[in-house]
Amino acid sequence: MNAPINRQLKLARRPEGRVSLDDFTLEETPPPAAEDGTVLARTLFLSVDPTNRVWMKDIPQYMPPVAIGEVMRAGGLAEVVASGLDGFAPGDLVFGMTGWQDYALLRPGGALGLAKLPAVPGLAPEKFLGVCGPNGVTAYAGMIEVAGVGEGDTAIVTAAAGSVGSAAGQIARLKGARVIGIAGGPEKARLLVERYGFDAGVDYRADDFRAQLKAATPDGASVLFENVGGAVMEAAIQRLNPRARIALSGMISVYNEAGGTRYDWAPIMAKRLRVEGFNLIDCAELWPRAARELAGWVLDGSIKAEETIVDGLTSAPEALNMLFDGANHGKLLVRVA
Amino acid sequence: MNAPINRQLKLARRPEGRVSLDDFTLEETPPPAAEDGTVLARTLFLSVDPTNRVWMKDIPQYMPPVAIGEVMRAGGLAEVVASGLDGFAPGDLVFGMTGWQDYALLRPGGALGLAKLPAVPGLAPEKFLGVCGPNGVTAYAGMIEVAGVGEGDTAIVTAAAGSVGSAAGQIARLKGARVIGIAGGPEKARLLVERYGFDAGVDYRADDFRAQLKAATPDGASVLFENVGGAVMEAAIQRLNPRARIALSGMISVYNEAGGTRYDWAPIMAKRLRVEGFNLIDCAELWPRAARELAGWVLDGSIKAEETIVDGLTSAPEALNMLFDGANHGKLLVRVA
Repeated sequence: MNAPINRQLKLARRPEGRVSLDDFTLEETPPPAAEDGTVLARTLFLSVDPTNRVWMKDIPQYMPPVAIGEVMRAGGLAEVVASGLDGFAPGDLVFGMTGWQDYALLRPGGALGLAKLPAVPGLAPEKFLGVCGPNGVTAYAGMIEVAGVGEGDTAIVTAAAGSVGSAAGQIARLKGARVIGIAGGPEKARLLVERYGFDAGVDYRADDFRAQLKAATPDGASVLFENVGGAVMEAAIQRLNPRARIALSGMISVYNEAGGTRYDWAPIMAKRLRVEGFNLIDCAELWPRAARELAGWVLDGSIKAEETIVDGLTSAPEALNMLFDGANHGKLLVRVA
Repeated sequence: MNAPINRQLKLARRPEGRVSLDDFTLEETPPPAAEDGTVLARTLFLSVDPTNRVWMKDIPQYMPPVAIGEVMRAGGLAEVVASGLDGFAPGDLVFGMTGWQDYALLRPGGALGLAKLPAVPGLAPEKFLGVCGPNGVTAYAGMIEVAGVGEGDTAIVTAAAGSVGSAAGQIARLKGARVIGIAGGPEKARLLVERYGFDAGVDYRADDFRAQLKAATPDGASVLFENVGGAVMEAAIQRLNPRARIALSGMISVYNEAGGTRYDWAPIMAKRLRVEGFNLIDCAELWPRAARELAGWVLDGSIKAEETIVDGLTSAPEALNMLFDGANHGKLLVRVA
């Protein structure tokens, strides 16, 4: 048997616009040994998320940017191969910051440091990277903890065909709200209604986008689950009623732009809105409760979720571009092993 | 005895920049009769507020703009002269939307429609337009209800030498927070500490404003009570720690500008901030409780507050400019009778 090789993609320069494999160096070394207090885990799937793109930029953000020469940071699903940590054994499935590499030393700490995943019979393991993992927990946190959605609410969800958005909309409906999704293109808008059970789907690329959105919210809206930023967000804010809540999950439309996050604050004042940014790094306590409830909804069919799986570690940069091109359906993953 | 005359200042055109008496027509007619369900009240003092300036503009806002030809809208302290309403009698002191006129027909409805003021022995009646009235209740609502300020918090207050800001800072200190005020000019910055008991005062006009602010918040800040908007707000937001709360009370610096309320949303996301706009029109239930607590603090000396009183109804337009020039100390009032 050949000795295992750890391929690592290290950030070589900060990409402008689209990301390319040329922005990284590929190094191949033997995997490290599991030190005390860590586990050595083999990466099975990488989670491809907008925040990966932000981590490549040298701008203020909730975690430090990835340094030049550092393995690209990413969350992943991994299998423990050696453990120096009580409670973890070879074969365990874990979630952690594996990065873009075959083998990672993971240690506990923070919501995203290292989490042992429960064995849920019948649940495909990749669900733990999607609707029962970071994206689903993000949707749950925003809709339930931040927006406090419930009966009588009308919720608008942007990037609604994405993995976070589709989960957010379905959670809001399960909690009794009327839900309008905004997505790019008529097919995605239709998918929101037909596949995910939204009350209406609106295509932000349509010439009559604003009229569609107005028609779908005849009484305005009380919740906005915001993934996009930019003109789409501003159009959604126009439909909000006084004292509406905005759960600000991300602003994907602007991550590829220089600057571009300056939006009007006047509606916050005029409509007395509550705008709250939130992030998984604050959800350590929420995670297990949310993941359990989400797994139940997936297994009983109350929540539908797709994965788009791209093969191969070195496909990760191009997979990240797919996210911004809107080329994926549902959660985007890279299969590493 | 001469028949009473009701002078009314009606909006003749929408002012650009500074406000002038020429923007109004002065009409003199007999006062109306008190109809059933209303009281006829004689205006004693007018409250001069940034929102008056906004009401003159034809832009989206929390109340409709004042129409051309309409009496200029303003809150005021008034004395009932005739009552068609149970519970109100001639001589009662009331707060209501008197407008820029000598006599107003007031009717109940909304937080600002018509409120009978308690007789508080020893309290000067103009306090009901200041620290025990709209400005104090605004400060109370923002600091206590919206920001939930308490022990362990560091609160930044902008426009801190103003009537809302000075009350907000004092309330935060009474609730156990460390309080830093931002004001224009070294005298005002000193006044914050010496007169109002702030922990530090920072002059936003100083060349080293950002360095002063940083020095005053070595551990960052957890609350921002925001009255100003613009570059001062953005500097304060830079000092906020993750998960800080912004109580958005107003953005006075931009009311005189065309547009100019586009600020960065990226820190809301990166720091997971909670930004909440609030307004007295949502504070009907809070008002009596807040006013009583504030009156107690004024009478026992826990809260200090000044009034600047300008004489004469026709001085109201120029008084409004004083607000934006920073020419007043504390609550700015126009004495009408």
